[in-house]
Amino acid sequence: MAERFDEDALHAVGVRIDAEHPEGIIFDPHQPQLRVTDLSAVRGDGIFETMLAVEGHVRKFTAHLQRLQRSAQITEIPLPPDSSWRAAVDLGLDEFRTRGGLPDELAVRITASRGVDGEPASDDPAFSGTYWVLLTPVSSKVKDSRGRPISVTLLDRGYDSTAPQRAPWLLLGAKTLSYAVNMAALRWAAAHGHDDVVFTSSDDLVLEGPVSSLLLGHRTADGQVHLKTPSAEAGILPGTTQATIFRAAEQAGWQTSSGPVTVAELHAAEFLWLTGSVKLVSPIARIDDHEVRVDAELTNSLLDFLSQEG
Amino acid sequence: MAERFDEDALHAVGVRIDAEHPEGIIFDPHQPQLRVTDLSAVRGDGIFETMLAVEGHVRKFTAHLQRLQRSAQITEIPLPPDSSWRAAVDLGLDEFRTRGGLPDELAVRITASRGVDGEPASDDPAFSGTYWVLLTPVSSKVKDSRGRPISVTLLDRGYDSTAPQRAPWLLLGAKTLSYAVNMAALRWAAAHGHDDVVFTSSDDLVLEGPVSSLLLGHRTADGQVHLKTPSAEAGILPGTTQATIFRAAEQAGWQTSSGPVTVAELHAAEFLWLTGSVKLVSPIARIDDHEVRVDAELTNSLLDFLSQEG
Repeated sequence: MAERFDEDALHAVGVRIDAEHPEGIIFDPHQPQLRVTDLSAVRGDGIFETMLAVEGHVRKFTAHLQRLQRSAQITEIPLPPDSSWRAAVDLGLDEFRTRGGLPDELAVRITASRGVDGEPASDDPAFSGTYWVLLTPVSSKVKDSRGRPISVTLLDRGYDSTAPQRAPWLLLGAKTLSYAVNMAALRWAAAHGHDDVVFTSSDDLVLEGPVSSLLLGHRTADGQVHLKTPSAEAGILPGTTQATIFRAAEQAGWQTSSGPVTVAELHAAEFLWLTGSVKLVSPIARIDDHEVRVDAELTNSLLDFLSQEG
Repeated sequence: MAERFDEDALHAVGVRIDAEHPEGIIFDPHQPQLRVTDLSAVRGDGIFETMLAVEGHVRKFTAHLQRLQRSAQITEIPLPPDSSWRAAVDLGLDEFRTRGGLPDELAVRITASRGVDGEPASDDPAFSGTYWVLLTPVSSKVKDSRGRPISVTLLDRGYDSTAPQRAPWLLLGAKTLSYAVNMAALRWAAAHGHDDVVFTSSDDLVLEGPVSSLLLGHRTADGQVHLKTPSAEAGILPGTTQATIFRAAEQAGWQTSSGPVTVAELHAAEFLWLTGSVKLVSPIARIDDHEVRVDAELTNSLLDFLSQEG
């Protein structure tokens, strides 16, 4: 476990947002910040986004804030205004500069907890919960992993694909802190010799990874590339990285689509990738016992699409 | 929200367990204790139990510790020895005595977090996570609610009843901190005029409440009482309160059983209750639009069974 964090993690910066500090105030992430009664720690009752800042620029900040708002609506967790999040992130970036150097890449995690039950932090609903930003230098290990082929295992997420529509209390479109199952799936994969997971529905649709989106690709007869991703209706978190890739791909003349993807379709796919905001793009070279073709040139195109952004 | 906590909550006592304090050390729950990088707050990645202490005696402590151990095995979260939990709870009880008075009833929540990723709190695996006990006086509101008839709504939990067997990574037998869905279900119920929820599987079996177990009861032809509870195989947390009731009921000559319970069987049940460690027993008087008979005498018998214990 220890090797998952290198010395860079020791240099993380925290920024808290509250009614008295709507533009944020710096804290030391090595010091306790949360009460044990904070609902984030009591019941995983909060929402979050993880973004990538490159040379001090946060990629697709607006898309992440929009997804955070969607999570907030679903979970009924009140949020500070977007301007607070942006100011708090800026404050954190400045803190790095003041300390003598902005790392080339930072993982920027923004978290909104429902707060302490029965004790709103402020009478202003926009600041009634607990809000913080954590900026952590991206380790060389994570940087090196980008673009590298991975092996995944297909794991049933237990829900059928109609669950999100019929049971909104399952919060399937929200990115909540209740991630124990996602982490258990990743542990299961590691214990069985895989790098990552692709979740399936109980009715055999392909969904997403525990912390990533899935892309399928094939070269069409005319030499074009077609990218496809499972549709969000099945209870998938809409991927901001996937969306950025699709936008750039369309501009490059590629075809893109989203829709239901069956397990059979997954196995028939020519190329597959997992995408995420910090790990960016990982080509899938194996699904359980099935080899999958890997095309380094295509993977580099996807990585290029992401670096064009903003 | 504010009325859910009365002034008693201000007098909670916290006890932390770590390698330097294997028998616990007192902390003030109003002061920050957790780093924002603690996995309890990052990903709801921890496990817990909530117990009831009456006049300084923790009810069914052993059963809760056993269930915590089961959660720990499923989630691979290392735990301090039982003796640490017991000593820490004793320390918390003593703190109340020192302060001038042990409340007649305390909710005692024990929590084990996986800790901070990549930074184990100790080289000793038994203390590598973050561990704490929170003792909170039970409010008069909760006390008054015991035995009172409630209205519940049936909500689909999305999983079918075979999910626990085929997909252990769903952690269905573990009591984890990832409770956002349970809380969302309770909010849904409240918004629709109900007090609580009974979860169903997608294949129409009846499961449990978000924070309680379900009991079915009927009087048999010979005047006996038969209690039934849904079987744990369907992905239910085995209820410690339900188990205590069943043990005492059997000693009183009642019949008990556990097995699959269909929605039709639920609607045909003569009596229904939700049971939990702190709220004890709540007779169900309504399931959505269906009235259910309530028998105050039977409910009192169940409450008596619980007060006999220990």
